[in-house]
Amino acid sequence: MSTQNQATRTEKDTMGNVEVPADAYWGAQTQRSRENFKIGGETLPRPMIEAMALVKKAAAITNASLERIEDDKRDLIVQAADEIINGGLVDQFPLVVWQTGSGTQSNMNMNEVLANRANEIAGSERGSYTPIHPNDHVNHAQSTNDSFPTAIRVAAARQINSLLIPAVKALRDTLDKKAKEFDSIVKIGRTHLQDATPLTLGQEFSGYVSQLDHALTRIDNALQGLYELPLGGTAVGTGLNAHPDYAVKSAEQLATLTGLPFVTSPNKFEALAARDAEVFASGALKTLAASLNKIANDVRWLASGPRCGLGELTIPENEPGSSIMPGKVNPTQSEAMTMVVAQVMGNDTTISMAGASGNFELNVYKPVIAFNLLQSIKLLGDACNSFNENCAVGIEPVKDKIDDFLHNSLMLVTSLNRHVGYENAAKIAKTAYKENKTLKQVAVELELLTEAQFDEWVIPADMVHPK
Amino acid sequence: MSTQNQATRTEKDTMGNVEVPADAYWGAQTQRSRENFKIGGETLPRPMIEAMALVKKAAAITNASLERIEDDKRDLIVQAADEIINGGLVDQFPLVVWQTGSGTQSNMNMNEVLANRANEIAGSERGSYTPIHPNDHVNHAQSTNDSFPTAIRVAAARQINSLLIPAVKALRDTLDKKAKEFDSIVKIGRTHLQDATPLTLGQEFSGYVSQLDHALTRIDNALQGLYELPLGGTAVGTGLNAHPDYAVKSAEQLATLTGLPFVTSPNKFEALAARDAEVFASGALKTLAASLNKIANDVRWLASGPRCGLGELTIPENEPGSSIMPGKVNPTQSEAMTMVVAQVMGNDTTISMAGASGNFELNVYKPVIAFNLLQSIKLLGDACNSFNENCAVGIEPVKDKIDDFLHNSLMLVTSLNRHVGYENAAKIAKTAYKENKTLKQVAVELELLTEAQFDEWVIPADMVHPK
Amino acid sequence: MSTQNQATRTEKDTMGNVEVPADAYWGAQTQRSRENFKIGGETLPRPMIEAMALVKKAAAITNASLERIEDDKRDLIVQAADEIINGGLVDQFPLVVWQTGSGTQSNMNMNEVLANRANEIAGSERGSYTPIHPNDHVNHAQSTNDSFPTAIRVAAARQINSLLIPAVKALRDTLDKKAKEFDSIVKIGRTHLQDATPLTLGQEFSGYVSQLDHALTRIDNALQGLYELPLGGTAVGTGLNAHPDYAVKSAEQLATLTGLPFVTSPNKFEALAARDAEVFASGALKTLAASLNKIANDVRWLASGPRCGLGELTIPENEPGSSIMPGKVNPTQSEAMTMVVAQVMGNDTTISMAGASGNFELNVYKPVIAFNLLQSIKLLGDACNSFNENCAVGIEPVKDKIDDFLHNSLMLVTSLNRHVGYENAAKIAKTAYKENKTLKQVAVELELLTEAQFDEWVIPADMVHPK
Amino acid sequence: MSTQNQATRTEKDTMGNVEVPADAYWGAQTQRSRENFKIGGETLPRPMIEAMALVKKAAAITNASLERIEDDKRDLIVQAADEIINGGLVDQFPLVVWQTGSGTQSNMNMNEVLANRANEIAGSERGSYTPIHPNDHVNHAQSTNDSFPTAIRVAAARQINSLLIPAVKALRDTLDKKAKEFDSIVKIGRTHLQDATPLTLGQEFSGYVSQLDHALTRIDNALQGLYELPLGGTAVGTGLNAHPDYAVKSAEQLATLTGLPFVTSPNKFEALAARDAEVFASGALKTLAASLNKIANDVRWLASGPRCGLGELTIPENEPGSSIMPGKVNPTQSEAMTMVVAQVMGNDTTISMAGASGNFELNVYKPVIAFNLLQSIKLLGDACNSFNENCAVGIEPVKDKIDDFLHNSLMLVTSLNRHVGYENAAKIAKTAYKENKTLKQVAVELELLTEAQFDEWVIPADMVHPK
Repeated sequence: MSTQNQATRTEKDTMGNVEVPADAYWGAQTQRSRENFKIGGETLPRPMIEAMALVKKAAAITNASLERIEDDKRDLIVQAADEIINGGLVDQFPLVVWQTGSGTQSNMNMNEVLANRANEIAGSERGSYTPIHPNDHVNHAQSTNDSFPTAIRVAAARQINSLLIPAVKALRDTLDKKAKEFDSIVKIGRTHLQDATPLTLGQEFSGYVSQLDHALTRIDNALQGLYELPLGGTAVGTGLNAHPDYAVKSAEQLATLTGLPFVTSPNKFEALAARDAEVFASGALKTLAASLNKIANDVRWLASGPRCGLGELTIPENEPGSSIMPGKVNPTQSEAMTMVVAQVMGNDTTISMAGASGNFELNVYKPVIAFNLLQSIKLLGDACNSFNENCAVGIEPVKDKIDDFLHNSLMLVTSLNRHVGYENAAKIAKTAYKENKTLKQVAVELELLTEAQFDEWVIPADMVHPK
Repeated sequence: MSTQNQATRTEKDTMGNVEVPADAYWGAQTQRSRENFKIGGETLPRPMIEAMALVKKAAAITNASLERIEDDKRDLIVQAADEIINGGLVDQFPLVVWQTGSGTQSNMNMNEVLANRANEIAGSERGSYTPIHPNDHVNHAQSTNDSFPTAIRVAAARQINSLLIPAVKALRDTLDKKAKEFDSIVKIGRTHLQDATPLTLGQEFSGYVSQLDHALTRIDNALQGLYELPLGGTAVGTGLNAHPDYAVKSAEQLATLTGLPFVTSPNKFEALAARDAEVFASGALKTLAASLNKIANDVRWLASGPRCGLGELTIPENEPGSSIMPGKVNPTQSEAMTMVVAQVMGNDTTISMAGASGNFELNVYKPVIAFNLLQSIKLLGDACNSFNENCAVGIEPVKDKIDDFLHNSLMLVTSLNRHVGYENAAKIAKTAYKENKTLKQVAVELELLTEAQFDEWVIPADMVHPK
Repeated sequence: MSTQNQATRTEKDTMGNVEVPADAYWGAQTQRSRENFKIGGETLPRPMIEAMALVKKAAAITNASLERIEDDKRDLIVQAADEIINGGLVDQFPLVVWQTGSGTQSNMNMNEVLANRANEIAGSERGSYTPIHPNDHVNHAQSTNDSFPTAIRVAAARQINSLLIPAVKALRDTLDKKAKEFDSIVKIGRTHLQDATPLTLGQEFSGYVSQLDHALTRIDNALQGLYELPLGGTAVGTGLNAHPDYAVKSAEQLATLTGLPFVTSPNKFEALAARDAEVFASGALKTLAASLNKIANDVRWLASGPRCGLGELTIPENEPGSSIMPGKVNPTQSEAMTMVVAQVMGNDTTISMAGASGNFELNVYKPVIAFNLLQSIKLLGDACNSFNENCAVGIEPVKDKIDDFLHNSLMLVTSLNRHVGYENAAKIAKTAYKENKTLKQVAVELELLTEAQFDEWVIPADMVHPK
Repeated sequence: MSTQNQATRTEKDTMGNVEVPADAYWGAQTQRSRENFKIGGETLPRPMIEAMALVKKAAAITNASLERIEDDKRDLIVQAADEIINGGLVDQFPLVVWQTGSGTQSNMNMNEVLANRANEIAGSERGSYTPIHPNDHVNHAQSTNDSFPTAIRVAAARQINSLLIPAVKALRDTLDKKAKEFDSIVKIGRTHLQDATPLTLGQEFSGYVSQLDHALTRIDNALQGLYELPLGGTAVGTGLNAHPDYAVKSAEQLATLTGLPFVTSPNKFEALAARDAEVFASGALKTLAASLNKIANDVRWLASGPRCGLGELTIPENEPGSSIMPGKVNPTQSEAMTMVVAQVMGNDTTISMAGASGNFELNVYKPVIAFNLLQSIKLLGDACNSFNENCAVGIEPVKDKIDDFLHNSLMLVTSLNRHVGYENAAKIAKTAYKENKTLKQVAVELELLTEAQFDEWVIPADMVHPK
């Protein structure tokens, strides 16, 4: 096993010698994975790397408090881990998602990097693995099988709390502000893409706000499962080789380090063998995606035009519309959003299939689950922010167009139902449609009512609430 | 428009005359739909029909209490609705799912059947629509746009409560009983399909119990959204033509009639235009499906054999195994379950795409959402019951096989880690593997420990918990 | 095992006695399945039942020609099978999809029904199984494992040829006729939902025709795999217990009976263990669904209105639009179509997951694959016919509206690009947009060209082809 | 609009000034996109960038041949494009997938980079846009709407031909070699995970070979659609602003440049508005994924153990198995493969939803389709190579284990069917199972045959073919 044209050091594992790039903090097992899995280029996202470092830090602190590792070893591990948690060592995690399904090689990558960096801090050489050994100290009382899925949940929960929820709230608040601003703008409703009875533009936007309010509740439901941590289950869930207090205490430690209400999973056998909480979380993200699809679609349709569309709204012009067609403002933020939606829907299929496919004591689709779940969270969070800042905040009503549609509509006829009956009302509307006239004109012509009655009975603003 | 070789009566709607089978309770609009949508044969499932009747009953009671319809009309509608709720008029709802996306035609089917049946009770002829008119009385203060999605939620919530939750609980309880019975049976663990450290069979089963316990929590999360009812939103969510108290009171009425905590949706615009609660509920069902896939797969693999598989479990023999191969017991309940899982996964894709595709004031994928959501609930509920009664209750351990595996395994070597170190332990295991010997034999041969030490250090039952 | 309140006869299989309804043609194994799989209510679709009977007929003829069963036995089996093929015995196949994953119980159901009916023809009693025995004669030289997937392919290929292809062609032909009729109607193009350069309505429709032409090619690609039949593989693909010529000859026989170019699968191990041809076929159906989604969506958007939408097309009015809103024509055929699309997309997920999940010598997701594949074919075929007959044939352009949009549009400015340059053209369009003027007015005001030049340069009909 | 702490130059587009990093080859529109779409970090994959450059090169050559641009301008564009095609300028395409759905910003990114690099070659400064202008020359006779989807097809077709097909063939050839090597190894078959009649290990592997042979045919089917190029359709499919011969000639040019049989799309309206060929191609990739799932799963199950699994195969040991458990060889290549499968399944959902969602003259989900399609191709190609080289080539049978299973099996009893009848055979097998004896022992004890008859009748090697 060799690496071309590069200074290397020789490391050794249970299978023999491995040449590792001389300046790499990673070691033999990471290097083997690089050779064995030349598939795609997708690496674990950074929040996963940071979460893995957090898990190692929490484990070291807990193990030291339980007198399973020495305090000075703990300090070295924590110092190295903090560098990663604070954004360092970014090029030391080269492994792709498409590796062993437990994530063992990425777990070893983290163990090796922390050991080599810790030893460097302590004045030792890379590859010396003294005073800190990747397995005996960094991975102490852990197996990939419990520490890797713990990191998935820590990463997902942190990203949901720090990125997604604030982004959804910000968009929600903008839409809520718009809903209030637009509260007195009466407009035509549309059902089946056909003209319907009126509502206010504020009411229409209030539906979006309600969708996002519900989304926040669903995300909170999903977080509850992500807060349960497998750590302490070790290889098959029994906790073999871990201190009896380790599971509870390490979860408490992670709660302290992150400020999130992590607890130890009530059943470690499930926690290693299934990924149901991740599947459910993806379902909540997919539901948010469905909501955002509705919102982004409505916005682009209502802003369609400028002259041959619905044109009830304008959206900010962020870029020239086309390389060939001057003067066009495209709903590009809606397009980015709906592409994100399509991605999140597909990611949900991936996560569902992967989550359903565990066997016995282990689910071996963990890296692909981590990759897709964290991608969905990141894309939804960023897309909400981008849509909010570059589109939603600048949505404005085109009042003339809205008014034209409203008063030209045949559907105000509904308010005549109770006065002239369903079938007469239908007759007025059909006649107006056929003869291209207004409702009032036809209603009077058909002698079903007087002009004064029409004006008294057909008041759009009175049609936007029960009475 | 004609129906062949069948006595008919002539009905009339806003578009003209329609020939309706003389003995049908349905009327013109139902008949038109039958002619216009000859697609597949999938009709709305019975729980949806019953829920629609419940909605009509609740509406009639509420409208009467608000003095919008007379008490005697209410009584006629309620009496007709009760027949349907109690299982009657089964052949009067012939419309397929593949109709208008609002469900209008099925809503009219219900209005027509109730009107004709109510009038029959009152002594009138079918098609007379007096004293009860389908639109003016049965559909009073309703639009399809609010009453149909209300029925979806009532149907789904009822089926989840009456079928799915008890079925999941029953399976959970059986597995919990097995987990306790199997608590002292130590067996080999398997990760990556490879031999791993031991656990008890009871621990393995406790993971399944925990999966189902979590599933019940997730289903409860999903129910909260289904308990919010659109009724009272009428055509576009404004509540036009409904009494101001109608939304709240009709939801209370449905709560009373069903014993479930229904409330009126806090925002009717969302409630008509989006189906997010259904998408989220499908996500919870899909997560349950993923859990059941794990359980059903583990059971069939552990019961694989009889002689060339893993063979740690036996399952009940419910039928001859094959038409050509005598003496074989197939895991048919697992197969039925995993096929149901595949269906539920696909249904989730359908529901997600449908739920994401609303426009403006209305989502027009409601029948396909109802069909798939109710199918998923029904299939999961029935499959849990079938798997429980025909398989899970009869699962028994094959103790000899379990013991053979355990003691033949190389993986007990893990317990030597702390005594001889990781690399020596690996050496013992590899040598034993290569030379086809036991761990003890090799360990002693390599002079890494004594036979007495081996017996003292390698105690499987001590390896199934932390220490 | 008992059936309530029903006259029964006692049958016996390798596991013991079973009470079967006295008048049923099915026997013990069918009855056991009814008791063991009370899941949902979805039965195998009728084309599958007929295909299974065709397989049995072909097998009997082939076995007789190879002197493996007697000619009189063949004749009895063929006569009974023909009754089913011709639409008879409809209530004799009660088993649900959610049974054993090989379809064994449905295969036995067919064997039992054919045996009992054949024996009845021969003058024997039900349950006597003489002269015809379900296993020894009807199932001769077969296993469920080869005959059931053969029936799936026969059923799918027949339905595709008899229903789906003609339906797609009919819709294609209607759209092609419209494309030709609309060839000189110049209209505004729309990209990003925004006004774009013009094209003819005929060109727009020609895109739909091209989509369906391609769909037919893809369906033909998919058929090639479905024409390969597993029959003759028997239990694990080896052909054990079958005559060496049986596989080739029975496929020839099925080709003769159906008029379709069936051949024997080149590799029977794949043919039993995988369902790749079905997965690929579902992919082709899903692609057709994507095409139909585009077409149905375009139609409903172009027909949106009547006054507050795009309104460039009218579609037939097949039913009253709404239970509350008179005068509205809803695009209900588009809605039915797009719901079918959502279903087919979900079915594809189900089929993909099921098809990917075979193990060793057998895929045990066959009934769910058959169910979904045949449902997708049926729904797409019926939906194409319904959309064609009830919508597409009646699509008409609204020429005034189309003209208004075209001449009001800002996007004709593109034709000025080469005359005044990209940036000046953009300036004209933006100014016109801001000041709500026409392009001509602004262009002249900005002194970028003369009125005559505008009229010479901006000719929409010249903008619909290269030059 | 500013970029922090970085030297910039000022560029100008129709919307105003933009500060662009001084050393960037990209210009104003790329820079705007970077500011407006801070979503995720997924950029278009490199094969897409190279294909875009190929399209620009082909367009320049074609435009020059049609005398629409000067030869010296062509040469400059071609020289700059060749640098990208040959792997250069890697850091000049920073835009994310989540941008405008037409890919306009990436198209402009390519136009800008080529213009600036070409001008640099010509001795001009970045930002001068002379002699080469991004729109007037690089993008000449193109719109994003035709050039971007052309690049998707060029990229996909090239990657399929250069990476995927050779990778599938290599794996197929390895498996075929194994199938031939293993041709005389008779082993137990398994259906329903239960012991079944025997076959040879070579036959089992031949099924995998047949799956991959079929996959190659399906991929070829899919390529046919990808070979049809939209180029020449320009903005809405009409070819406005392009020379009448441009479409045909530019496709010929791309065929020449790539050695692949590209042709111009027969209908440009479809070619811009739909992405059906991509959806179908994804379906073919998904089917390959299903095949690979079966193969990878079979391999890991057959190699399960070492002592408590099926253990009929060994696979290469590429890395230490676990961070805690010594001596374990995990099927990591199968795990990487099946994770890739899950990803490809999800990508198919994304592509299907995106492909189905075009409106009017344009599908605006192109970047997400490109991203997922190219990811699926890359992952499948790389995973086939990795699985082949690191696993399949080293698969070896464990003959003792295979023999033990075969002769211990109860299922050889099938060969007694024709001698003692189905029911007696079943009795022998069941008795042997219950009493834990061999078939021969029981058969003789039950006096159904003699020992000599058993040995004559039960010859596994005779059971692996018809007779």
